[in-house]
Amino acid sequence: MADLPLRPELVGEEPYGAPQLDVPHRLNVNENPYPPGPAVLADVARAVSEAGAGLNRYPDREAWELRADLARYLGHGLGPENVWAANGSNEVMTHLLQAFGGPGRSVLSFTPGYSMYPEYARNTHTAYLTAPRRADFTLDAATVERAVAEHRPDVVLITTPNNPTGTSTPLDVVEAALRAADGLVVVDEAYQEFARDGTPSALTLLTDHPRLVVSRTMSKAFALAGGRLGYLAAAPAVVDACRIVRLPYHLSAVTQAVARVALAHAEEMLAQVDALRRERDALVGWLAGRGLEVAESDANFVLFGRFADRHAVWQGLLARGVLIRETGPDGWLRVSAGTPAEMAAFRAALTEVAAEQTLPGWRPPAPHDPGEPT
Amino acid sequence: MADLPLRPELVGEEPYGAPQLDVPHRLNVNENPYPPGPAVLADVARAVSEAGAGLNRYPDREAWELRADLARYLGHGLGPENVWAANGSNEVMTHLLQAFGGPGRSVLSFTPGYSMYPEYARNTHTAYLTAPRRADFTLDAATVERAVAEHRPDVVLITTPNNPTGTSTPLDVVEAALRAADGLVVVDEAYQEFARDGTPSALTLLTDHPRLVVSRTMSKAFALAGGRLGYLAAAPAVVDACRIVRLPYHLSAVTQAVARVALAHAEEMLAQVDALRRERDALVGWLAGRGLEVAESDANFVLFGRFADRHAVWQGLLARGVLIRETGPDGWLRVSAGTPAEMAAFRAALTEVAAEQTLPGWRPPAPHDPGEPT
Repeated sequence: MADLPLRPELVGEEPYGAPQLDVPHRLNVNENPYPPGPAVLADVARAVSEAGAGLNRYPDREAWELRADLARYLGHGLGPENVWAANGSNEVMTHLLQAFGGPGRSVLSFTPGYSMYPEYARNTHTAYLTAPRRADFTLDAATVERAVAEHRPDVVLITTPNNPTGTSTPLDVVEAALRAADGLVVVDEAYQEFARDGTPSALTLLTDHPRLVVSRTMSKAFALAGGRLGYLAAAPAVVDACRIVRLPYHLSAVTQAVARVALAHAEEMLAQVDALRRERDALVGWLAGRGLEVAESDANFVLFGRFADRHAVWQGLLARGVLIRETGPDGWLRVSAGTPAEMAAFRAALTEVAAEQTLPGWRPPAPHDPGEPT
Repeated sequence: MADLPLRPELVGEEPYGAPQLDVPHRLNVNENPYPPGPAVLADVARAVSEAGAGLNRYPDREAWELRADLARYLGHGLGPENVWAANGSNEVMTHLLQAFGGPGRSVLSFTPGYSMYPEYARNTHTAYLTAPRRADFTLDAATVERAVAEHRPDVVLITTPNNPTGTSTPLDVVEAALRAADGLVVVDEAYQEFARDGTPSALTLLTDHPRLVVSRTMSKAFALAGGRLGYLAAAPAVVDACRIVRLPYHLSAVTQAVARVALAHAEEMLAQVDALRRERDALVGWLAGRGLEVAESDANFVLFGRFADRHAVWQGLLARGVLIRETGPDGWLRVSAGTPAEMAAFRAALTEVAAEQTLPGWRPPAPHDPGEPT
């Protein structure tokens, strides 16, 4: 590649992505472990066959019916004119930064944060700025106000529940960002459906805030990571801005059809969310019971630590067929909430690793640990 | 939108795209009029059901098997490491300009050319430069050499067969571009499968030219416009550069599955290409017989003119249920090659419009015009 006129800032860069390893228990990328059921699959096959008969034609460039379905799902009085959809949140965020970021502009986010954000900024030539969250990974209004005053960003990006920490952010912090900043405030709610009861969504603020954008995805709660469908809700003018920068026909007819089937089965798809929330809560309790630090989580994953050598722990788990993610602040690891069987495998593997590596402060589980779901 | 901090260069811009109108005969966006047959549809349903069972997981980030299939289809000794795929040529071109264009860099193309190119440049902040083709829409080595010497572009973009003119470019012109330019030379062969016999592909030049990229699409010959699958062939280092700038999981599991089915049925999908080439050639002859100017075409469309008021002609056709494209140089119109029935409808409508608008020089067809396929 050295002979090619690659852009200088890309030289030496590696393609982004967690290792895709074929192991028994994949708990590294916060996938939903529950595949679509037979009714959904039958409807997917039917919908794709119908769409297939017109595959020689370009798809609906506006994805209007899909956006109407997404709006209905979100509620809050939203309509298709409030919703934009693209190939994963990756593309939604790219559209936002193409329209409102770009050369000479900046985006501010809070760390530890989602590792894709710098990539969105790099690809759109938007300056990427960060400010730290508090020590417990929470975000308060004062922190946001200070950071906005210091950096004067064109786009503020607040992730709630946050990745990789699982931390929710109260709405008063979002409101503080909207007051403090002149530009767009994007609230990334990719994991919102997993939040504990009583955690409000920034969707409730949309009516009064034309510069607010709420980003969502069907990859997590809807178990549609393979379908690649991210979306946002905002004022129609924000959607129109995305329509300017999107390249035409960005959403294939098949993508639109599959996402609409998933939305038609929302109740079934979301039923597993409750199971995952229970596993997540049980996992938090179990890890705390082992003497570990655990971040409170409103997502389908848990950040835990701290380990003097987190890579050794990650490696020890992998050797036992359990793939988790080495990400987040030094000393911490992130594990996705999975099925009861996957969680049992994770607990058993971590117990073995702790014994093998004599982790300091580790409290072995009792043979029938009450924190462990049966 | 005036209250939003949209990037200044986007203010007042409209979303790109031809009108999507529901009319009997859609001959405006060079779609393949032949929908997938029952065998293909059955395989699509089967493949999507299989992919569907794993839709909760992220797709293969490398789309390796699809890229292997595409390489096999292209031949010329290419392997998956030579092929990159994305959601339509739109995204392939964007990846190329993100890696090799961008702020402070430029892309050169030749006019009249494809109307999406300025959008790719705008979205990637690449300076968009053009040089005119010759009066007959052809491109020769001297024209390319002069333009490259004048502009020193970072990327040269040669479209063959060209859109909207249908004109092929000989390989010596591509070789001249490679000699003259220091940067990437991208040959957009979206319509290559429709070229007349004996029209060579720039694929034959790849072995000796590490800065050459050949772009293709499954939207046209493969009748998969709704599936959104564009791809390129190049040296592995070019592919690796695209892998750096692509956002992970850009190709959904369903997109990969559907494209692979179409490739497995390549023979059936491509059989219609011959029919479309015959319709195209007959159409060129028929239009010339009417006393019109017609550009020689190696694509699945024909550019014809010239009209003092092309919009009136376009409108007259639309009023008769025939939607073509008002694009290209002043006075010209572009019509896609369609089924025999669509072509008959087009000829009948244009004959009526010519009479109604008393087009100068128009030679009405004989009742059983020999240029007209029966």
